[in-house]
Amino acid sequence: MGYQIPRGTQDILPGTVEKWQYVENKAREICSRYNYKEIRTPIFEHTELFLRSVGDTTDIVQKEMYTFTDRGERSLTLRPEGTASAVRSYVENKLFGLPHQPTKLYYIGPMFRYERPQAGRYRQFVQFGIEAMGSDDPSIDAEVMALAMDVYKELGLKRLRLVLNTLGDKESRKAHRDALVAHFEPRIGEFCHDCQNRLQTNPLRILDCKKDRDHELMKTAPSIHDYLNEESRNYFETVKSTLTAMGIDFVIDPTLVRGLDYYNHTAFEIMSDAEGFGAITTLSGGGRYNGLAEEIGGPATPGIGFAMSLERLLLALDAEGVTLPIEDSLDCYLVAMGESAKEKAPSILYQLRKAGLKADKDYMDKKMKAQFKAADRTNAKFVAVLGDDELANGVISVKEMESGNQTEVELEEVTQYILKQI
Amino acid sequence: MGYQIPRGTQDILPGTVEKWQYVENKAREICSRYNYKEIRTPIFEHTELFLRSVGDTTDIVQKEMYTFTDRGERSLTLRPEGTASAVRSYVENKLFGLPHQPTKLYYIGPMFRYERPQAGRYRQFVQFGIEAMGSDDPSIDAEVMALAMDVYKELGLKRLRLVLNTLGDKESRKAHRDALVAHFEPRIGEFCHDCQNRLQTNPLRILDCKKDRDHELMKTAPSIHDYLNEESRNYFETVKSTLTAMGIDFVIDPTLVRGLDYYNHTAFEIMSDAEGFGAITTLSGGGRYNGLAEEIGGPATPGIGFAMSLERLLLALDAEGVTLPIEDSLDCYLVAMGESAKEKAPSILYQLRKAGLKADKDYMDKKMKAQFKAADRTNAKFVAVLGDDELANGVISVKEMESGNQTEVELEEVTQYILKQI
Repeated sequence: MGYQIPRGTQDILPGTVEKWQYVENKAREICSRYNYKEIRTPIFEHTELFLRSVGDTTDIVQKEMYTFTDRGERSLTLRPEGTASAVRSYVENKLFGLPHQPTKLYYIGPMFRYERPQAGRYRQFVQFGIEAMGSDDPSIDAEVMALAMDVYKELGLKRLRLVLNTLGDKESRKAHRDALVAHFEPRIGEFCHDCQNRLQTNPLRILDCKKDRDHELMKTAPSIHDYLNEESRNYFETVKSTLTAMGIDFVIDPTLVRGLDYYNHTAFEIMSDAEGFGAITTLSGGGRYNGLAEEIGGPATPGIGFAMSLERLLLALDAEGVTLPIEDSLDCYLVAMGESAKEKAPSILYQLRKAGLKADKDYMDKKMKAQFKAADRTNAKFVAVLGDDELANGVISVKEMESGNQTEVELEEVTQYILKQI
Repeated sequence: MGYQIPRGTQDILPGTVEKWQYVENKAREICSRYNYKEIRTPIFEHTELFLRSVGDTTDIVQKEMYTFTDRGERSLTLRPEGTASAVRSYVENKLFGLPHQPTKLYYIGPMFRYERPQAGRYRQFVQFGIEAMGSDDPSIDAEVMALAMDVYKELGLKRLRLVLNTLGDKESRKAHRDALVAHFEPRIGEFCHDCQNRLQTNPLRILDCKKDRDHELMKTAPSIHDYLNEESRNYFETVKSTLTAMGIDFVIDPTLVRGLDYYNHTAFEIMSDAEGFGAITTLSGGGRYNGLAEEIGGPATPGIGFAMSLERLLLALDAEGVTLPIEDSLDCYLVAMGESAKEKAPSILYQLRKAGLKADKDYMDKKMKAQFKAADRTNAKFVAVLGDDELANGVISVKEMESGNQTEVELEEVTQYILKQI
């Protein structure tokens, strides 16, 4: 009997993993430019954290969490997203008390949602996200969106659309919410079961429903933009004008609503209209979550962030036919023939590697010809050939693969020789 | 009420995370030199995999696993170690069928064991490990040990000891096992409960027992070295002579036994005798596991690997007082004073960042002096100061912090100017 990978998860193997490494390195590099620092939180948290922060009426909490009890009878949950943990850590470690504010953090790591597996959607998936906590300067909203766009753009994506909305502050949201209830309530019986529940718990999310999206009441639903108070309107205007000054294109979509409970003011999504996707696809989303830190026991703190699925980012690269500039070659492959040469090979190889060279040799007791074939497969820049005769004379033959030039080099000098050539 | 991190786990925060990044990058770099490629397997696996591979009589399986049932009634377990998953993936993805063999893999990621939390021991911890599958050439055993030692050495550790043993092949192990049972059985009642169980299930692990280590029968227990058949002895001799030829010091410890079921032939640990630790401490361990792939449904495959805890590696760096060369500074901090200057700042900052510079500005509506203080805290190489007057004249003042030199630069040229200086 064989053992299989759990359903909805994937192994990332050599040949593919290099793309992940490249994308993650790019994300890290851009974070470093924007002065965001990495935070690593545990893979699981107390379940209560997600109930409170993500919201206990969301699909994530109600249907998708990996929740279990540990040997100490604690209810733990594999994190379904990154913001709750980052904010929990910010509060628990009192990062708000450090001299440099806002606290600008990024994370890259696996998240877990028990969903029906489908193309590009896994039960374990990787999110890269950032969180900027402690500032309600609209220019940081623009910074957060710029950073997300930079990651996509610098990787080579072009078919991008930044979609922007505001959800307003508490007061504006309350007014909008009341208007939504009044709008949907008389005909809520025509909506799906989930929407019927949402009417009282979170009517905003009715706008987000995939089942009911063609219902006529959807088109006429009151827009948040008619309920924004002055402060919320000003905030939104400044976010927009800052993006414009930065030269970052965006479109406004008053129906854009994010699925989690904790958003207010700025909400955005980055979408791809690459033909490879068939339809327009959301690559990432984020928004402002003033009040979330307070919600979980911290001081009143403004915050904004985004999260992007790296699985979807990689799909977008495929959809646009982008090839990442991944280099995968050895500096030297060592071919050894004969007993003495084979005995000597490990220490020569070790010298090459200690000098910083990427090097390898045969471990399958292959014949000469097969060793050369193996060398070819590794794209080795140099192939060093050691036979018993060469060894007896204290030399080794080094071939530069591109030019085909072959030279005999003193055995003791082979590392220096290759270093010089490279 | 506040929310706390789960017991036995930790947040890795900015200020500390840079050490992790440095160490992981070093491990990746060395793997690249040795031609090991990354593999990423899921955080959880079917529980059965660990029962079969780690061994159902081990402490890990009996006491320490995070096992739970998912919404599809599968028994899943958060991986307690990395080898089982790597071998499962090797078998399931038929990596043995690829042209380049052996398959040389590395992984870095969180592992989970429900243990009593103590200094340097967490319930979620990070392991870096490698696996070389498909070769039983003794020179790959030496390579695996050399790679582990290189990671420690290149990070600056000096108080290292490579401890080596052989557990022999199946036949030798069987003969030794019988001798151990005969040795302990008459007086097994004097041993701990765990050891009494081990007598029949895995008597080798009695030698590893912390409770009974001072029992007189321990010293006189039969050594594997007296039961090695010729093949096992030859294999061990070649491993030793290869290490010697490579110039890698080691000591033989015939009592070295690894805690997992799947080892045979080469077993090793790397220990630190740094004074900061108080006592000699195991940093990492590994060994050969020929037959493990077969055990979980694959073809008969030789394999060898190691795993190292990055938590312990960081402790060892502290214990030896090693400071990693971590650089953490901005290229430019932008100070803006006045309404127009503040409006202009985001787009200037964006230009700097797009050019690859690490740059930041204030988001807390700070006064001039406080902005300069913030600039200092980021170790900015340059501070660019924009006031409304400068803006009106299309210039910006740039100060190089090390020299104190201040220059007025055309606003449009500030990015080029700083790029040139750096």
